[in-house]
Amino acid sequence: MFDSNAPAAPVVPTRGRLRPLGLGEAAITGGFWGDRQRVNGEATLAHIESRLESEGWLPNFDLAAAGTLPDGRRGREFSDSEVYKYLEALAWEIGRTNAAPDAAFEGRFRRVVTRVAAAQERDGYLNTMFGRAGQRERWSDLEWGHELYCLGHLFQAAVARQRTRPGADDGLVGIARRAADLVCDEFGPGGRDAICGHAEVEVGLAELGRALGEQRFIDQAALFVERHGRGTLRDIEWGRKYFQDDVPVRDADVLRGHAVRANYLSAGATDVAVEGSDDGLLQSLRRQWDRTRERRTYVTGGQGSHHQDEAFGDDWELPADRAYSETCAGVGSIMFSWRLLLATGDARYADLIERTLFNVVATSPAPDGRAFFYANTLHQRVPGAPADPAGTSPRASSSLRAPWFEVSCCPPNVARTFASLGAYLATADDDGVQLHQYAPGRISAMLPDGRVAAFEVTTGYPADGSIRLTVREDAEWTLTLRVPAWAAGARLRVHAGGEESEQEVEPGSVDVRRPFRRGDVVELVLPVEPRVTAPDPRVDAVRGSVAIERGPEVLALESIDFGGDVVDAVVAGAPVERDGRVMLPLRDRSTDAAAEVPLVAYHDWAQRGPSTMRVWIPTS
Amino acid sequence: MFDSNAPAAPVVPTRGRLRPLGLGEAAITGGFWGDRQRVNGEATLAHIESRLESEGWLPNFDLAAAGTLPDGRRGREFSDSEVYKYLEALAWEIGRTNAAPDAAFEGRFRRVVTRVAAAQERDGYLNTMFGRAGQRERWSDLEWGHELYCLGHLFQAAVARQRTRPGADDGLVGIARRAADLVCDEFGPGGRDAICGHAEVEVGLAELGRALGEQRFIDQAALFVERHGRGTLRDIEWGRKYFQDDVPVRDADVLRGHAVRANYLSAGATDVAVEGSDDGLLQSLRRQWDRTRERRTYVTGGQGSHHQDEAFGDDWELPADRAYSETCAGVGSIMFSWRLLLATGDARYADLIERTLFNVVATSPAPDGRAFFYANTLHQRVPGAPADPAGTSPRASSSLRAPWFEVSCCPPNVARTFASLGAYLATADDDGVQLHQYAPGRISAMLPDGRVAAFEVTTGYPADGSIRLTVREDAEWTLTLRVPAWAAGARLRVHAGGEESEQEVEPGSVDVRRPFRRGDVVELVLPVEPRVTAPDPRVDAVRGSVAIERGPEVLALESIDFGGDVVDAVVAGAPVERDGRVMLPLRDRSTDAAAEVPLVAYHDWAQRGPSTMRVWIPTS
Repeated sequence: MFDSNAPAAPVVPTRGRLRPLGLGEAAITGGFWGDRQRVNGEATLAHIESRLESEGWLPNFDLAAAGTLPDGRRGREFSDSEVYKYLEALAWEIGRTNAAPDAAFEGRFRRVVTRVAAAQERDGYLNTMFGRAGQRERWSDLEWGHELYCLGHLFQAAVARQRTRPGADDGLVGIARRAADLVCDEFGPGGRDAICGHAEVEVGLAELGRALGEQRFIDQAALFVERHGRGTLRDIEWGRKYFQDDVPVRDADVLRGHAVRANYLSAGATDVAVEGSDDGLLQSLRRQWDRTRERRTYVTGGQGSHHQDEAFGDDWELPADRAYSETCAGVGSIMFSWRLLLATGDARYADLIERTLFNVVATSPAPDGRAFFYANTLHQRVPGAPADPAGTSPRASSSLRAPWFEVSCCPPNVARTFASLGAYLATADDDGVQLHQYAPGRISAMLPDGRVAAFEVTTGYPADGSIRLTVREDAEWTLTLRVPAWAAGARLRVHAGGEESEQEVEPGSVDVRRPFRRGDVVELVLPVEPRVTAPDPRVDAVRGSVAIERGPEVLALESIDFGGDVVDAVVAGAPVERDGRVMLPLRDRSTDAAAEVPLVAYHDWAQRGPSTMRVWIPTS
Repeated sequence: MFDSNAPAAPVVPTRGRLRPLGLGEAAITGGFWGDRQRVNGEATLAHIESRLESEGWLPNFDLAAAGTLPDGRRGREFSDSEVYKYLEALAWEIGRTNAAPDAAFEGRFRRVVTRVAAAQERDGYLNTMFGRAGQRERWSDLEWGHELYCLGHLFQAAVARQRTRPGADDGLVGIARRAADLVCDEFGPGGRDAICGHAEVEVGLAELGRALGEQRFIDQAALFVERHGRGTLRDIEWGRKYFQDDVPVRDADVLRGHAVRANYLSAGATDVAVEGSDDGLLQSLRRQWDRTRERRTYVTGGQGSHHQDEAFGDDWELPADRAYSETCAGVGSIMFSWRLLLATGDARYADLIERTLFNVVATSPAPDGRAFFYANTLHQRVPGAPADPAGTSPRASSSLRAPWFEVSCCPPNVARTFASLGAYLATADDDGVQLHQYAPGRISAMLPDGRVAAFEVTTGYPADGSIRLTVREDAEWTLTLRVPAWAAGARLRVHAGGEESEQEVEPGSVDVRRPFRRGDVVELVLPVEPRVTAPDPRVDAVRGSVAIERGPEVLALESIDFGGDVVDAVVAGAPVERDGRVMLPLRDRSTDAAAEVPLVAYHDWAQRGPSTMRVWIPTS
């Protein structure tokens, strides 16, 4: 069953409505996301490796190989996973840039893999925190030990390598296979009836199984998913919902507990549902996604209201103050939504992915790619203090971006997402290509009967609403374009065969089926005028306020532009666009002065030093 | 300097604007608070002792005495303090009820003291968690060890005993004195330059110094206060402000960090400022109190917005959802306000005490006195599950009252507050008596020149707004009555010497100076009609909503009365009182049905099973 021609993509289901296009078929060539991919490759990856080295998280593997652990081990119980996420990011970057075998990234990748390989035990076990004399026993702290979680990230890294450099002799895929075999032996039927306190191994095992054609790994993922909600983990102060061990996945009605755990588990459960043709489970996950999006998701796409347990709140509990909205929960939400999109083709999943990419994932890194937000508040009441560029920050200071965190899951999570982002642009089915995200790029998909659907995308999106597709090969197929839910009044223009047509298209998606000729142009024009968004009345925290959005971007008001504390800002008119900036008439409650004030894209806030900031602005 | 005639009160400063009246001079004889004192004495104290026994927190002292620790020790690092708070509550209860030496409470008290005494080391050290072979060293974990915190509660217990049974031979005062001497030796000038991660020893040492005439203890309290803000504690994820070790007390401008710690420290700092005639420090504390009350205090008087670190939020960060508002922070706020009231005479401090007593402290216990709220949310979005009556609950489940908690500071904190509540009613100065809180009771104060200011209070407050004082002795003096800030339109009637007068009085306070004769009546009539309170516009979380108050009580809407989820309630008219209930016209957004719905006093919510509840109700 091993398919060496699988797309170079993080998720390649064996069935489902849509087939992902990998990095060889879809590429971002510039623009908003191209810039971020470039910075990720040029700066972030080296920054991460440097910190993994200086914090001791990578040297932990050397200590393990030398047999001197636990002496000198540094970092938290999940620090191994950051190394694996870094490897995954590197693997996608190598695939994305089609780097030569002697290029720098390849050398870095191999050196890190060599150090990881040396730390693996003979039976396949791999973790620097457990199992040696002077350490706790293997699997003795499933609630908090993160052993299976770390392996899940190892598996995802191996999948990235397998799909971008199949057959490479670095050894990462073999390391992952041996570890996955051990997990199946230990936790399979008749083995330990247990789960990991942090979901991730499910999604890792399922994809490793897909990538290597090992049904056993997929079955083990299914077993872990099914074991959730049976209370095999100890109860804790925040309840078993923190681990999603409160209710079986298929019986749940909404995501709850720790927001990263909940999304990772849901992503893995979707994989399991698809591979097992388990329609009941898939429908349950779709219902959970619906309610979570409606009632437990910030306007930014951010998820998780609580600082204490990094968890979802109750329905409608979405305070702007102290919104936690962890960057990694955004990454996890995209993982979950993308799998549901592949399974169903429903454009709403791509809508949330876009919202989350622009307003959570893009918000995290600084323009130089060397500092990050871990949490993403929607109302900063006190100007933050700059982080020490050489230091390590508490994870959720929510003030200014920081170079590294004591819990530093977010930087490598952003890095792997950016490096693989091309694989989230478009999909194919038997009759055509679906374009879900808009960026300058090239798409070329071979359809099952040999037709080639190939086109180039030219756009200044999101600054500009025009997305121009130029067909590159003659072929008859169906082009499907997502029309975002916010894009009422979008227009579609087709210039083909010397004729022109134009029509208004409804939010959702629009199909263009025709015998395309090289040079034909399809243009989608999305209305990116600033718009005023009112909150659901059941959300207490932002009643009487509005958010201003423009295209896929949520905008924010910063004190540096307002000239006073944004706590006193009141909307005094409608937003207008002037010289490329969105201006909002505002009144300052403390002085009663009124002025037109520029807003910034939320993802650009806190780039001009400490400031107060708000997304939701009172109207009276 | 030892004054065996000091008032039987928790705080007896040697100087200041007002002199407290102790339990021998001021007594509550019934009504709202009398009922709670009765339940406290009849049920809560025995409930607490039973749990201290069954949880092992009291037996820990026996294990210490037997020399078998650390084996078998149970409870958290601060569990000793609950035993001391229980002793303090018992001591006040014995004083309040003037129990005979052979009464049950006295026997219980002595038996517990005997067990505590047996655990004290020869050099005065007393803690069941530290210092023995197999335990961590003494003072080795000042951030989290709570050793000095526990001793602070021991000192407060000894003060209660000293002031209610001076010269009693049970030994508690001696235990406290030896421990305090050790603290001064260890942490005095030239000793460890350190503080405790949880303030409390400051207020305990200062009062023990006052009670025993030991200036050294007061000086040590001053030293601990001055050492705050110098970063002697390790930094933590939430910052040193959690411990109030970020900024020196006199340089701070607001309470911040852990809300109980912040209030206990501020109370101790006030003691130190008063004893040292340190006007700069006192003025700083008054400014901090002002800003904290204005910007960081819930309408209930509750303090502390965050679950994660049980801490104050930023200014105006007062979400109703997940309001933490820990019961103990309410107790601490009363401790701080009371000391400022004694120092300055400013009625605003008594206003906040009243608000906090009725809406935080009275909210915690169930009517039977055997279950408690630890946190006091202002918006319950999901009906809670009943707590296991035999079990131990997580501390901040915020749903229904629970009999005991893993961290169970609140039940004994409420118990000691209720038992000593008479001492918070009234004060005296050279020319008269000030009545701060209104409850049926008897007051009798000897003024410095031998005049006796004595009167009886008859009132159905807060159900009824009439407070009637009947003078019991002939004497000329000044009666000062607090007129709460909410009581616009209050009236004062004087029936004296056969004449009657009546006048409107402004919020703040009103003086009546005259040659009182036995039988004269002074009546204060406070308007307790329901009123509508709008929030400060800088609080995001409750914009567009109102709270309904009645007298000192904040009211709440429960789903059991609304007939639907309170998330859909919208105010549709003004509150009216009908048959002793406050009725509020409401519309149900989900059905558009309108009805008049009864509100309950917030302190009475969640007494009829699981419900959703809200204090702030949207107006549109």
